[in-house]
Amino acid sequence: MPVKNVNEVPTEAVQAGSGTARQVLIGPEQAPNFAMRRFIMQPGGGIPAHTNTVEHEQYVLRGRARIGIGDEVYEVKKGDAVFIPAGTPHWYQVEGNEPFEFLCVVPNAPDEIKLVEDSG
Amino acid sequence: MPVKNVNEVPTEAVQAGSGTARQVLIGPEQAPNFAMRRFIMQPGGGIPAHTNTVEHEQYVLRGRARIGIGDEVYEVKKGDAVFIPAGTPHWYQVEGNEPFEFLCVVPNAPDEIKLVEDSG
Repeated sequence: MPVKNVNEVPTEAVQAGSGTARQVLIGPEQAPNFAMRRFIMQPGGGIPAHTNTVEHEQYVLRGRARIGIGDEVYEVKKGDAVFIPAGTPHWYQVEGNEPFEFLCVVPNAPDEIKLVEDSG
Repeated sequence: MPVKNVNEVPTEAVQAGSGTARQVLIGPEQAPNFAMRRFIMQPGGGIPAHTNTVEHEQYVLRGRARIGIGDEVYEVKKGDAVFIPAGTPHWYQVEGNEPFEFLCVVPNAPDEIKLVEDSG
């Protein structure tokens, strides 16, 4: 189907995160080069620092969060576009009382997720 | 900048369409494999039937439209994900009194837009 609504797409928990779920809106079985996913993080949720072998192109649909990218921290909100280069450590922490929702587009390439150990 | 808000990004008119503008949120100078753009179509606007040499992965942010893809017509609305394969004729017609806004992700590859002649 070329058109589907987010409410029709199954949701799966993201094990590396807390209060975090993911939907694959357009996957590799449909599209040749990249995949579109939606992430939903509940208030208080997030994903700790990690790296991926693929880059992320993201768009915030709802809510607010702090996102760490490399050594910088950004306050992001609805309407923000976010680029996270391949291999760059990054993390998410939801702010406020509303779910934080964003699209995340990645290339159809093998991805390895590695948690970054706390050096503190 | 890894984070930018849509309100900070310049808008350009889309010549092939009517009442249609485009923003490049994440472009080839920033990201290696694909580009994220936002399209804004005013009520009554749209783009007539055309083909592109690259596929489109889209997500509707606001409003409603009719979209033709190949021989089918779809009524799309906020929260719909849309996949348009490379080379497939497609068109957009805004429905209702609200602007129709969507993200459109394309590979960083040469794209040629060809209008499809009306056979009627």
